[in-house]
Amino acid sequence: MQRKAVVLLSGGIDSTTTLAIAKSQHFQIHAISFRYGQRHALELECARKIAAHFHVEKHLIFDLDFRKIGGSALTDNLEVPKLRELSKIAAEIPVTYVPARNIIFLSITLGWAETLGAYDIFIGANVLDYSGYPDCRPEFISAFENMANLGTKAGTEGNRFSIHAPLIRMTKAQIIQKGFELGVNYSMTISCYDPSPDGKSCGSCDSCLLRKKGFLEAGIPDPTVYR
Amino acid sequence: MQRKAVVLLSGGIDSTTTLAIAKSQHFQIHAISFRYGQRHALELECARKIAAHFHVEKHLIFDLDFRKIGGSALTDNLEVPKLRELSKIAAEIPVTYVPARNIIFLSITLGWAETLGAYDIFIGANVLDYSGYPDCRPEFISAFENMANLGTKAGTEGNRFSIHAPLIRMTKAQIIQKGFELGVNYSMTISCYDPSPDGKSCGSCDSCLLRKKGFLEAGIPDPTVYR
Repeated sequence: MQRKAVVLLSGGIDSTTTLAIAKSQHFQIHAISFRYGQRHALELECARKIAAHFHVEKHLIFDLDFRKIGGSALTDNLEVPKLRELSKIAAEIPVTYVPARNIIFLSITLGWAETLGAYDIFIGANVLDYSGYPDCRPEFISAFENMANLGTKAGTEGNRFSIHAPLIRMTKAQIIQKGFELGVNYSMTISCYDPSPDGKSCGSCDSCLLRKKGFLEAGIPDPTVYR
Repeated sequence: MQRKAVVLLSGGIDSTTTLAIAKSQHFQIHAISFRYGQRHALELECARKIAAHFHVEKHLIFDLDFRKIGGSALTDNLEVPKLRELSKIAAEIPVTYVPARNIIFLSITLGWAETLGAYDIFIGANVLDYSGYPDCRPEFISAFENMANLGTKAGTEGNRFSIHAPLIRMTKAQIIQKGFELGVNYSMTISCYDPSPDGKSCGSCDSCLLRKKGFLEAGIPDPTVYR
């Protein structure tokens, strides 16, 4: 029987590449996305198309209102910073930081994985472009894995959970090259923190800047429609 | 300024006693409860009254649909076991186990705590009566604390989160005695997994059996209305 995996799928470059990697390792894929009060629902639309494209076994969209716990430009009405220096993006914890977001996403994913009998969880966390996000660092990923194995029935009964973060030390360019080799069509993905209602990317938020630079350095044409 | 704490409040004996303990330690209390698709909403009603009684600064009720991730008699339509041996309750992981429940609850609490600037989180986890629940063990609590400090902005910037589980090694009788000393009125709390619509406890599920035994051993009259 095919081993099951659960992939966290946001609809961006990193999670889509991660899904393609899990698929290439012959897992039966379950994908999970979160409707968490993000200011644009566009990324969930992308996640849906990507899940369908990759023929995942099941795609779960889980509702969770982060606005209730507050504290970030991605869910509150703070302004998304534009045209920042890339060195600053890497060094600081930005206002777009959502408190404990990956911790919460991974925890819910863990609950679903335990129900499914899936002991491999894939997340597109990446430390290089976002070194400012503490929940994207390798030390965090392994601390989460350890906690998960102590705090679940499956973990304590001998089915060890593995948290895979295959992109963790890759640059955006390396990620894009890897996805390109695996046949990922990045026009299905979205990165922008502040897209227009018709789905065009702003081209100047942290996430757009990193995306542009990634395609440039990878030497692969950027299929994104910027406004 | 008073130090802030967040208390996970389910409306049962353990979380209510934990709240009273945090209050006695002079924290400014924020309470969080979860509407997670439990089969009875009665415990949220109890949580509301308890939060008001203790004059908490804020009581957040967070919605989260556990039915989507499945796997438990508390949220699915499995039958709640009745009149089991107490030794069995302590030894097994019961069907009422909800996959990763405390992990998910603690993660969301952590996100809210970070937004509030509260670095003390109190949970009524208890290893003796429920040794079958992996997410009630001390090793799990300290693994979670470690993960939380690696995975949050506050944790990495020098504000260490502490996860307090003051009841972790207490018997139900000791918990009830402690709460009694602190003036807790246990008639406001509910333990039953399967109460009648008018709020009466069944008296025979695992949770009712442990409650009855606790009052008996504490030598304190049980104020619960059993049907």
